[in-house]
Amino acid sequence: MKINVVKSVLAASGAVAEENRRRLNDASVLAINVLSAPGSGKTSLLEKTVPPLAEELRCAILVGDLQTTRDAERLGGLGAPVTQINTGRSCHLSPTEVAEGLKTIDLEQIDLLFIENVGNMVCPAAFDLGEHLRAALLSTPEGDDKVAKYPTLFQPADVILLTKVDLLSVLDFDIGRVRDDLSRINTRAPLIELSCKTLEGVDLWLDWLRGQYRSLHK
Amino acid sequence: MKINVVKSVLAASGAVAEENRRRLNDASVLAINVLSAPGSGKTSLLEKTVPPLAEELRCAILVGDLQTTRDAERLGGLGAPVTQINTGRSCHLSPTEVAEGLKTIDLEQIDLLFIENVGNMVCPAAFDLGEHLRAALLSTPEGDDKVAKYPTLFQPADVILLTKVDLLSVLDFDIGRVRDDLSRINTRAPLIELSCKTLEGVDLWLDWLRGQYRSLHK
Repeated sequence: MKINVVKSVLAASGAVAEENRRRLNDASVLAINVLSAPGSGKTSLLEKTVPPLAEELRCAILVGDLQTTRDAERLGGLGAPVTQINTGRSCHLSPTEVAEGLKTIDLEQIDLLFIENVGNMVCPAAFDLGEHLRAALLSTPEGDDKVAKYPTLFQPADVILLTKVDLLSVLDFDIGRVRDDLSRINTRAPLIELSCKTLEGVDLWLDWLRGQYRSLHK
Repeated sequence: MKINVVKSVLAASGAVAEENRRRLNDASVLAINVLSAPGSGKTSLLEKTVPPLAEELRCAILVGDLQTTRDAERLGGLGAPVTQINTGRSCHLSPTEVAEGLKTIDLEQIDLLFIENVGNMVCPAAFDLGEHLRAALLSTPEGDDKVAKYPTLFQPADVILLTKVDLLSVLDFDIGRVRDDLSRINTRAPLIELSCKTLEGVDLWLDWLRGQYRSLHK
């Protein structure tokens, strides 16, 4: 009985995710679920992503947080529609919340949808929101052991972004260890090293997005 | 019906936590639940905490992680008993896991028990493990907005540790903003600024632990 209840909840969640994906596909929108620990630089990344793409790809953002609209306020001036989803006490976005968020956006007017998940390396990874791709961030100050410790986040990712590489000179961080751990769990996703402060590597991420948009939707 | 099931699970969890606390009290052990995002420096903190206390307070450590024994390996050489608890896919330690962990430690031979929770700013905060005190870490590279965004972690904390302050000179981080946010949600816990790299502020943390041990158990 208890197992049946859990199964039906997950099945319902999956059905909502599929419906989200269908709506996105109908409008030829590519959706990217952006996941990481708190403070890895998800919002900073989007601040450096949306403006340079503006002339070729029209973006929108759904941003999840337990409380506050601070991220949405930061993202509000980028010229893209932004909708804040407050999850209350919940540690991840749900497909139902994303479905509600999609209603606030005119999907026919955008090409890329970024879904900035709640900062958490565990729970968000378990929920399909209806996205097409997942970007997982790891910031250098978090330490070079996180891929091995949180494989459920990094294994299903389509791209892995090593952020805050401008801090490498003052940290004890071994990129070789990250690459080694990645090779054991994920051979598919490229690892892009970048800094939203110096903008090093951001072009590689923008090129990756352009390529994904072209290959999936055109 | 569904609510009753949830209630009974939470009630059972609370009862296990109370039993853990009773066992700790019987042995005059002070237990500290250490919580933070992944990579805030929980393990580094314990590496700098256990050895200097060794002559006055005998420590033991329970360390939670989804996978790997990397943290336990790091902590294994400190001269204190260390037990790794692998939670599998679960994003927090449960009181039942802590109860199992307590069986591996001779409580009569220790004074302080550190419980290093799974790295996560949301879920672990919701679970009483049977600890006496909570230490919440915030690392400077995570950003100065985290107290406002994760109040359920910081509000119930007994002490808040701002870690990696050696990086302040290369970050845009406003401690005033943290203090301001803390004043709105928590007037009880002191904020200790420290670095496990330079050891700045670590003495303040050790003194806080000594004071807590004396006031609660002697």
